[in-house]
Amino acid sequence: MSSIEQAGEFNLIHRLTSISSPNVKLPIITGIGDDAAIYRTGNDRVQVVTTDALIEGYHFDFAFYSMEDAGYKAMAVNLSDIAAMNAHPILATIALGVPRSVSMENLEALYQGLTVGASAHGVQIAGGDTTRAPVLMLTVTVIGEAKASEIVYRNGARTGDMICVSGTLGGASAGLDILRHGIKPEAVGSTAWNLLVARHLRPTPRLDLVKEWASQGIRPSALIDISDGLANELHHICAASGCGATIWESRLPLSEALRAAVILERGSVDYALNGGDDYELLFTASEQALKNANPASFTTIGTITEKDILLHRTDGSLEPLVPAGHDHFSAI
Amino acid sequence: MSSIEQAGEFNLIHRLTSISSPNVKLPIITGIGDDAAIYRTGNDRVQVVTTDALIEGYHFDFAFYSMEDAGYKAMAVNLSDIAAMNAHPILATIALGVPRSVSMENLEALYQGLTVGASAHGVQIAGGDTTRAPVLMLTVTVIGEAKASEIVYRNGARTGDMICVSGTLGGASAGLDILRHGIKPEAVGSTAWNLLVARHLRPTPRLDLVKEWASQGIRPSALIDISDGLANELHHICAASGCGATIWESRLPLSEALRAAVILERGSVDYALNGGDDYELLFTASEQALKNANPASFTTIGTITEKDILLHRTDGSLEPLVPAGHDHFSAI
Repeated sequence: MSSIEQAGEFNLIHRLTSISSPNVKLPIITGIGDDAAIYRTGNDRVQVVTTDALIEGYHFDFAFYSMEDAGYKAMAVNLSDIAAMNAHPILATIALGVPRSVSMENLEALYQGLTVGASAHGVQIAGGDTTRAPVLMLTVTVIGEAKASEIVYRNGARTGDMICVSGTLGGASAGLDILRHGIKPEAVGSTAWNLLVARHLRPTPRLDLVKEWASQGIRPSALIDISDGLANELHHICAASGCGATIWESRLPLSEALRAAVILERGSVDYALNGGDDYELLFTASEQALKNANPASFTTIGTITEKDILLHRTDGSLEPLVPAGHDHFSAI
Repeated sequence: MSSIEQAGEFNLIHRLTSISSPNVKLPIITGIGDDAAIYRTGNDRVQVVTTDALIEGYHFDFAFYSMEDAGYKAMAVNLSDIAAMNAHPILATIALGVPRSVSMENLEALYQGLTVGASAHGVQIAGGDTTRAPVLMLTVTVIGEAKASEIVYRNGARTGDMICVSGTLGGASAGLDILRHGIKPEAVGSTAWNLLVARHLRPTPRLDLVKEWASQGIRPSALIDISDGLANELHHICAASGCGATIWESRLPLSEALRAAVILERGSVDYALNGGDDYELLFTASEQALKNANPASFTTIGTITEKDILLHRTDGSLEPLVPAGHDHFSAI
């Protein structure tokens, strides 16, 4: 018998995929391997579907998550997967596993969080299933839509493309460290404390950028959301696109709050490269494609190359960018 | 704090729905409260989406479920919800929570079961999420489609309609009792034993009937799948449709296998009325609507009335039909 740890998450997905997709057929356009599955429903319209499970003790801990936070975040991470396909979310279904320790009021707070997360983006909760479970288990499925020509996969990056990220990086995992280690607001400043903790508990799916791109006729060449850390996600894009990348440490967008939290054990650059849960968008595009883009909505951090994934350090050195993101099976 | 047991499953769904659906808007046509949610994607096409979670120790027990059985059944129960809307399933997503005790081979067997269940109905597994959990948790979401005019809800039953069921009833819960009580094949006959156990472990979603109706231009007036027992599901149709019903004990379709298993503690009629997990279809239709239907594909068990839900016993007595199906919160 082989353990799942030995196989690792990538091999696991590969082996399971080979069982369930013996021969891919229409109308599915893409399946396992991107942020969401795409299927065609009309001549030029596609539907986009994504599922993510959040499980108490693994993805969140009620020591520092409220029920409403857990609901909000379960919705947000799924909406982020829709954003990562450059699509627009429409509706969500919820499967809840509920332990005996959860009261009716707890469950209402959880639904409140789900609803706040959904309605902020015009998404409707359309149904679901509620049952008993030994710990709280929250599976959200979101269905979105797009024109077929709008969908952006991970595999479209081309040599010479710019590598860009939305927002700032690293704050969410710094926020998690603050919560895990019980760091007090006084230790990092209460403004920074609040911002970093909110980055972890209440991430914003960057659907605003998807809308902005749609209104300006901009289409990235490759797109992914940063759930497992920038380094890891950049490796995903390069693997899918068959290319390399070079990024510059000095260009990484670090928030003021992250820079302020100097007492944290990891440096802000490490958080930015390897911290998970930011749910910002990582994308590539030609300079031409971005000529009308709002420069305030993203930061260019590097360039797509033919091969090798490299990091230019601020001290001038050049080193391989090692993917050190979260593996749901090796890390737990 | 109120416990969920006090509220009961119906109130639970009602209270959560009032949080998440403050004002229902397009393009969702129906949401929480039927077997699946419906939303419009084209002028005359709708998409149908349903989610169900199966959790180890609550919905299945590895004492008598193989990994492949668990995968098969998780897929089948979701496909049954698509059948219960008179729609055609297209694709599925899977969210898996996996405990440490599960090996790679176990997980492959689970996926094999999911794939067998899906491909029997031309359904493709299009993606999903796999993560750690304390027990095996298996959430399947299925998306289907239909013409808008084909969709059948629970609320369309009208006085004078016939009440019909597909296949036979009660076998699945008799099979569960056989497994739970460790009843040996010799005690009920090996043919009956195998048939009843298979009814529980490997239910068939009745998508064949949906196809048959489509080809013959037949549309039931109300439709639901029998997951929680006939009595319970008939109450759902009557509540949604604002009507009553009378059914005849003598007309209940009992399989030979169920009749053969006379040593079981509950009588075969009790299994047929109150046993869950059959995944047959319960539907209502006018006599006119069924005039071209294949009489071998269903059994007429009663009539829709203005009010009261009644059971004509074989001994000539008339009694209220009490819903005694499974409540996922009161029963556990």
